[in-house]
Amino acid sequence: MGANTSRDIQNSNFLINSYSKIRGLECDTGSGANDADNYPNAEGSGLNIRKIIGQSFDAFIIAEEDDGILIIDQHVAAEKVFYEKILAALKQGSFHSQSLLMPHIYDLSISEFEMLKENFDLFKKYGFEVEIFSNKSIVVRAVPDFLEGVEEKNMVFEIISAGIEAGKIDEDAFCDKVAARMSCKAAVKAGKTLNIETASLMIADLMKCKNPYFCPHGRPIIIKLQLKDLLSKFKRSL
Amino acid sequence: MGANTSRDIQNSNFLINSYSKIRGLECDTGSGANDADNYPNAEGSGLNIRKIIGQSFDAFIIAEEDDGILIIDQHVAAEKVFYEKILAALKQGSFHSQSLLMPHIYDLSISEFEMLKENFDLFKKYGFEVEIFSNKSIVVRAVPDFLEGVEEKNMVFEIISAGIEAGKIDEDAFCDKVAARMSCKAAVKAGKTLNIETASLMIADLMKCKNPYFCPHGRPIIIKLQLKDLLSKFKRSL
Repeated sequence: MGANTSRDIQNSNFLINSYSKIRGLECDTGSGANDADNYPNAEGSGLNIRKIIGQSFDAFIIAEEDDGILIIDQHVAAEKVFYEKILAALKQGSFHSQSLLMPHIYDLSISEFEMLKENFDLFKKYGFEVEIFSNKSIVVRAVPDFLEGVEEKNMVFEIISAGIEAGKIDEDAFCDKVAARMSCKAAVKAGKTLNIETASLMIADLMKCKNPYFCPHGRPIIIKLQLKDLLSKFKRSL
Repeated sequence: MGANTSRDIQNSNFLINSYSKIRGLECDTGSGANDADNYPNAEGSGLNIRKIIGQSFDAFIIAEEDDGILIIDQHVAAEKVFYEKILAALKQGSFHSQSLLMPHIYDLSISEFEMLKENFDLFKKYGFEVEIFSNKSIVVRAVPDFLEGVEEKNMVFEIISAGIEAGKIDEDAFCDKVAARMSCKAAVKAGKTLNIETASLMIADLMKCKNPYFCPHGRPIIIKLQLKDLLSKFKRSL
């Protein structure tokens, strides 16, 4: 047995840099005061975590609310935070297009290619500078600046693909797809040890989300063990 | 929100002294090799905690096994550890009688008094030096040395009362009652912050118990969240 959890979560520095970079996107996660009014907490979510207990299986953050213990899927939580930030940035236009040091060339299927051609304006509006390179490939010269620091293989293509999936004209769907695909790729993965500072940042950000309980794909982010249920199972009262 | 769990569990020194004192009872918690063979783990219990995650509500130790997250009731866990140690010490005679600096006088009911008189030999055998003081009270001059350092108001009387409850002749029941009553009184309570070292000691001791899952009174000590169930609830696989 090793009683090393606290040390694990404190000493690792996994992804602290990339997490901080992404979270540097300063934008309101709510779309307006009226939305926030629908939630009991002034932060917007009703989630009110008072203590981080630790990390388990390098995948879950264990935390405490006034009335229960929370098990939080770290990947989906980070994804949700990024999703709301990116979506807000896209909708508010609070980003810039940033040129890539090396343009990327991508081969597309015929249908993808046709869809892309019809959506050039949307891609441009949202910071993607895309040109036709041949009759089956494109070149990407610039991307929104919130992609900086989290780029990975195929990230740009993933986003273009997400935009294409969203179809023409439906701008909300386009933004939603881009934000969802982007956030999933950027978010801290399960299987990674978090230090306490990163976990704290993630939890603080999650509490600001409009809906911290489910990810854009509908997967649960938080499992709550109610204190009263725990006490009942232990046949005790505090 | 305060992400201070790790610090909480590391900085408090609650009960580390008294816990260490009690746990200083060096005795085998099993009653023999044959018993240990009934459990999958060489330690005796099958409980194989590899990591302490932290403490929640100052009442639960959160820990990790290979295949799940454990929530451990700290009071009942400590009680169980003490119970097995004290019971083994009583049965193996690995204790001494220790004179009290101040003899204690206790009033008893008539039935308690009659029962006690019939059990003097047992009390003496197990380290209690008890004399009749009047026709309704007794004086206690010595107690087993494992009571040292955990004495509190009425502790001695509690144990005598437990012995009386067990009735005459039934020596096993006497030992069991004494151990159960003693361990409940001595064990770390809920509502107390534990430091990581104390939690580690408690968990290491709990793993050596013959049955770490239930206390002498039948209350559960451990609630286990199976990893596969968690993953299923989060709709994911690791």
